[in-house]
Amino acid sequence: MLVSCRRLLTALLQAQKWPFQPSRNMRLVQFQAPHLMGPHLGLESENGGGVINLNAFDPTLPKTMMEFLEQGEATLSVARRALAAQLPVLPRSEVTFLAPVTRPDKVVCVGMNYVDHCKEQNIPVPKEPIIFSKFPSSIVGPYDEIVLPPESQATDAMAHVAGFTVAHDVSARDWQTRRNGKQWLLGKTFDTFCPLGPALVTKDSIADPHNLKICCRVNGEVVQSSNTNQMVFKTEDLIAWVSQFVTLYPGDVMLTGTPPGVGLFRKPPVFLKKGDEVQCEIEELGVMINKVV
Amino acid sequence: MLVSCRRLLTALLQAQKWPFQPSRNMRLVQFQAPHLMGPHLGLESENGGGVINLNAFDPTLPKTMMEFLEQGEATLSVARRALAAQLPVLPRSEVTFLAPVTRPDKVVCVGMNYVDHCKEQNIPVPKEPIIFSKFPSSIVGPYDEIVLPPESQATDAMAHVAGFTVAHDVSARDWQTRRNGKQWLLGKTFDTFCPLGPALVTKDSIADPHNLKICCRVNGEVVQSSNTNQMVFKTEDLIAWVSQFVTLYPGDVMLTGTPPGVGLFRKPPVFLKKGDEVQCEIEELGVMINKVV
Repeated sequence: MLVSCRRLLTALLQAQKWPFQPSRNMRLVQFQAPHLMGPHLGLESENGGGVINLNAFDPTLPKTMMEFLEQGEATLSVARRALAAQLPVLPRSEVTFLAPVTRPDKVVCVGMNYVDHCKEQNIPVPKEPIIFSKFPSSIVGPYDEIVLPPESQATDAMAHVAGFTVAHDVSARDWQTRRNGKQWLLGKTFDTFCPLGPALVTKDSIADPHNLKICCRVNGEVVQSSNTNQMVFKTEDLIAWVSQFVTLYPGDVMLTGTPPGVGLFRKPPVFLKKGDEVQCEIEELGVMINKVV
Repeated sequence: MLVSCRRLLTALLQAQKWPFQPSRNMRLVQFQAPHLMGPHLGLESENGGGVINLNAFDPTLPKTMMEFLEQGEATLSVARRALAAQLPVLPRSEVTFLAPVTRPDKVVCVGMNYVDHCKEQNIPVPKEPIIFSKFPSSIVGPYDEIVLPPESQATDAMAHVAGFTVAHDVSARDWQTRRNGKQWLLGKTFDTFCPLGPALVTKDSIADPHNLKICCRVNGEVVQSSNTNQMVFKTEDLIAWVSQFVTLYPGDVMLTGTPPGVGLFRKPPVFLKKGDEVQCEIEELGVMINKVV
């Protein structure tokens, strides 16, 4: 385990447009304190200062940054009023700082983005951003411990599986294999590139998830056909493997592999185009029908 | 845009252990119907059949699969009772099927996991799973359209930024660069590998986010020191770039790059070890202090 250190300027996003109204030095935090139940939203009074409890100032405010950001100007104006008022400040020693945002949809990362960092590696400055990601489950607070994990064994892996469904791992092959520093993420993660369903079939409803016919049709023609008995690593192996790295949460989805016949490896290669209708089917689980537009 | 087709057996996870009590053919779905407000939780009566409205059967049940799975046995036993009862079935033509889970923490994917798929590429079967990911925002329903995106321009990118904070992109370099098919994800995403904070400093509180000193100290010694004016792509460029691929949501986090001095490129290389104390600081934003354990 070789662990290295970088730290980054980080942008926290709000989908609604953020108003440019001056708000002095607004430093939003998520915190806990012994006299309060659970996480709260607050304002750091200054860099390194104490904390103003925003939820005490206005009990209708949400207690998480995710909800605060989702509500946009409505919540921001409350925080601005709190900043202007003379409110009690909890001493820093009495609060625990959490990460300012927890469980976001995405943690997007950019590689090779400092000119001086490129120079130290003797590599050219990239012409396009190189994008990679972390799972939101890797986030911890500003004073929390960084844990070098033992590479532990996961036991009883299947006990943590709720059920199975069909997924279509749509890929933009040019973005996956030729650009973005050969990191696959971008080519895999366009909006709508993960059709899922129709149902979560519970584990005990299936005789054997590793013996199911699996098939893909494009415009009615079978292009991929196999059986889940071809899987190199079975579901329990994959759960155990991934659990070495990350904590899996309820609802997490794992796409466990693709069978042969993918368009990229056909001669000549075949790619999805506008107007195509794709059917993905797994025995006992169901069929999905997605049109490409 | 070369778009290719794969479809996968997908495991949906529940952190609590899933009971092995027989539940006939339990096919959980998220759906909408014209007479219902918003998404509901249901049971597909059979593969390709109509839908039983679980929220009508028990109005205390959550309406999303994420909450259903988080509650574990409590909600599952209700679904089991619904399955045993004679309940009205909504015809398939009257419902819209959503993905069975939406906004999970993670979509974990496995590459090269079919023996026959490896053979068609003439590559050896991998000795370890190759793990990559999609963002949860890529999920769509089983009959939704797959959209081949135009590579559009994002305008007014900074208007969507709420503010800035400090992040530490901890990396396990062996996992990042030598294993997992050179996909960086695993080495980046161990639990606790993304300290964040202490505050979200709103955009209008900072004179210029692209002219801030940035520094990392390990056990008091400065190991990385630069300025955000060294960034190759500025925040607005990065927002515009990523928005070509994915929809950004409120609360999404973007780590915008690392300056020089990283341990991997030192001669000899330096790596974090147990007992180290790491301080990451950005001018105006604050300082994080994390111990390695």
